[in-house]
Amino acid sequence: MRKILIIGAGRSSSSLIKYLLDKSSTENLHITIGDVSVENAQSKINNHSNASAIQLDVFNADQRVEAIKNADIVISMLPARFHIEVAKDCVTYNKHMVTASYVSKEMQELDEAVKEKGLVFMNEIGLDPGIDHMSAMQIIDRIHDHGAKMLLFESFCGGLVAPESDTNLWNYKFTWNPRNVVLAGQGGAAMFIQEDTYKYIPYHKLFRRTEFLDIDGHGKFEAYANRDSLKYRSVYNLDDVPTMYRGTIRKVGFSRAWNVFVQLGMTDDSYTIEDSENMSYRDFTNLFLAYSPTDSVELKFRSYLKIDQDDIMWDKFLELDIFNPNKKVGLKNATPAQILQKILSERWTLEQEDKDMIVMHHKFGYQYKEEKRQIESSMVIKGDDQTYTAMAKTVGLPVAMAALRILNGEIKTPGVQLPIKKEVYEPILKELEEYGITFVEKKVPYLGYNPDSLRG
Amino acid sequence: MRKILIIGAGRSSSSLIKYLLDKSSTENLHITIGDVSVENAQSKINNHSNASAIQLDVFNADQRVEAIKNADIVISMLPARFHIEVAKDCVTYNKHMVTASYVSKEMQELDEAVKEKGLVFMNEIGLDPGIDHMSAMQIIDRIHDHGAKMLLFESFCGGLVAPESDTNLWNYKFTWNPRNVVLAGQGGAAMFIQEDTYKYIPYHKLFRRTEFLDIDGHGKFEAYANRDSLKYRSVYNLDDVPTMYRGTIRKVGFSRAWNVFVQLGMTDDSYTIEDSENMSYRDFTNLFLAYSPTDSVELKFRSYLKIDQDDIMWDKFLELDIFNPNKKVGLKNATPAQILQKILSERWTLEQEDKDMIVMHHKFGYQYKEEKRQIESSMVIKGDDQTYTAMAKTVGLPVAMAALRILNGEIKTPGVQLPIKKEVYEPILKELEEYGITFVEKKVPYLGYNPDSLRG
Repeated sequence: MRKILIIGAGRSSSSLIKYLLDKSSTENLHITIGDVSVENAQSKINNHSNASAIQLDVFNADQRVEAIKNADIVISMLPARFHIEVAKDCVTYNKHMVTASYVSKEMQELDEAVKEKGLVFMNEIGLDPGIDHMSAMQIIDRIHDHGAKMLLFESFCGGLVAPESDTNLWNYKFTWNPRNVVLAGQGGAAMFIQEDTYKYIPYHKLFRRTEFLDIDGHGKFEAYANRDSLKYRSVYNLDDVPTMYRGTIRKVGFSRAWNVFVQLGMTDDSYTIEDSENMSYRDFTNLFLAYSPTDSVELKFRSYLKIDQDDIMWDKFLELDIFNPNKKVGLKNATPAQILQKILSERWTLEQEDKDMIVMHHKFGYQYKEEKRQIESSMVIKGDDQTYTAMAKTVGLPVAMAALRILNGEIKTPGVQLPIKKEVYEPILKELEEYGITFVEKKVPYLGYNPDSLRG
Repeated sequence: MRKILIIGAGRSSSSLIKYLLDKSSTENLHITIGDVSVENAQSKINNHSNASAIQLDVFNADQRVEAIKNADIVISMLPARFHIEVAKDCVTYNKHMVTASYVSKEMQELDEAVKEKGLVFMNEIGLDPGIDHMSAMQIIDRIHDHGAKMLLFESFCGGLVAPESDTNLWNYKFTWNPRNVVLAGQGGAAMFIQEDTYKYIPYHKLFRRTEFLDIDGHGKFEAYANRDSLKYRSVYNLDDVPTMYRGTIRKVGFSRAWNVFVQLGMTDDSYTIEDSENMSYRDFTNLFLAYSPTDSVELKFRSYLKIDQDDIMWDKFLELDIFNPNKKVGLKNATPAQILQKILSERWTLEQEDKDMIVMHHKFGYQYKEEKRQIESSMVIKGDDQTYTAMAKTVGLPVAMAALRILNGEIKTPGVQLPIKKEVYEPILKELEEYGITFVEKKVPYLGYNPDSLRG
């Protein structure tokens, strides 16, 4: 039996675990699931004979080392900041490792040691990062192999609610960590490059600088720019590409309304509100509006944010009940962002029957001889239910497939790796198709930024 | 001879040093001026017989201890973060100390040791903090002593250019550290309280939430909120005051135009621009605007910031030459804020004959028996020239006066102190009047926030 240790049995592990359990007999696998909560780990294996659950606190060095020593490969599904101790033990005890997280500086520093031992540490092999890397590199490599020159790469991804479960005016529900949604875009200006011109968008303008996307059969979406699109130029072998942009997808109209929270300061997580616990939702909203002993919070809100009487955006705020004088915040020493998250969670939490949806969309502009061309490639995938969500499938399946291939010696380039090599993306993208995770590719005219060469 | 050591002979030390040299014979003082540049120190004493200049690097412990041991009192005019080593030596060698800086956490921690040794460490005794504390406490104490209850305290201060030297459309020149002006308001939401309602303004709205002030004989000004007005409630013995607001004064129209830089992201100091050195002013401006292969930077700027064709604000940007395609930034790996500072410095630097001006304005609302009353108190002071600027006078003179009074045993309450006690503010405010630093006080009707009790 080959022994796989999975650390962390959270929401994102369900499809990963199911895949490996389903393969366990034919592939001769034993799966050990370690979690702080052994009950949580047990619930995931559902008494499967090829699996066992253990209590594993990643900060308990003895527990951690014991479990790692006993495995052939380790999959860490913990939050990214907890990987490094696991990674160091994997080096010490000669174990391969797989994560769905961005490579941290500390992880990268292990590269030489990992190579020396001939180990594979595969990272960024979930959805985003993960499927985005693989599906983009497959087409970029094809374009380059064909002798063409890349002119433009734009890549968009978003976790949304499926249309049949889309029941609020924001066309949005929390399908992943709500805190990350509330804080999205903070921590620095968004950076990208368009036709060799660098662009920087500060956080407070991010949600008014959206781009629109059309995806066949799924309609129109919008996207706001991700933090740093520039660093992907070297990762994707696109150092000289004139246009490089990565963004996060939302349904049309979301960002313009979300911008209101940003403008008010409600997404700020850097200070706590005085007496937040006993404040009503209305009091909370009023904190960010000018003082007036007479004017209503509603009118001040509309006037300050310039929301016309006939603007549908207004109803989005009414729907969230942020003017309610009776509902209490009930959170002690809370930041604005924490309070906003609570208010949103009341309306944006998935119902039992709700399904989520992942949308990914790439644009590749390139020049072949004298001709400019463009390819667009889209993936839209829905969750099966609240366990096998689109998020769990798209994050967990590539992780599982990579782990099995490393174990089988099919993925073998040693070092701290990303899934940007053919050895990795070709077989995994192919196998993902069996699970319904497919891209639709089409050729479109290369439009650039001024298709008709119009001038004033 | 009583020996005073002044550490730091920068721009803000000129009036301080002149005051002490002028008093040196009658008061029997010897002044030692220590600076990293001994030439700089020498230039300030101008061969005065009661003074000497020494080379003093505050990070050189031997030099520092030697100089401090040899003094009776130490005045540190260094940037605030450099005070603490001096302060620790002053405790060790039993020396009084004076600074014009905010009390840091480290400084406050010395309080017990300072008290035990019977020393006075007087801080925040410059302009702001300093004269603001003293002039406010004088009136607040009077109101409280009279048995009245404080309803409102608002305090405003700004360093401006004198009207006769006001030659640009911004009605502003750098009269102090330009970097602080560019970064003003960053680092957290502004917090204050109005009629018992807390208010929080995020940075990106700060310059659109200004208040207006009228100062007799000087016209109309505007003010944006300071970072944290709330912490002054306890300092001023105003824990229960319903309204507490502190702001920074500018000429009317400055903030609305400055907000454009904030909106663009040009005041960001958290990242460096790619290839900043070779970029033109126009390229720099274009970094923050949407890409377009056809539209002009000017039109994109006006459209994005919603600047009408007949808006005088537009000319403020033309005046700064930010659309010039030929002027080079010339700064390597510069942040947006550094580049903006350079551009502004070309237009906002004081000319040889220019004078600066300090404006301070307080409002005190209070209830005496059944009657609500208000007092306003204003100080407007101009610089004599580029050496004895209004800033140098208002920062340096209170420091000098406090140092002399500590030496003479007139200010004697031991500990890490602020100038909020009568013992300190009464004699110093009185003496400041001899130097033309006077407040004009007047009674006005108490207006509150809805003087006519109007409702929609």
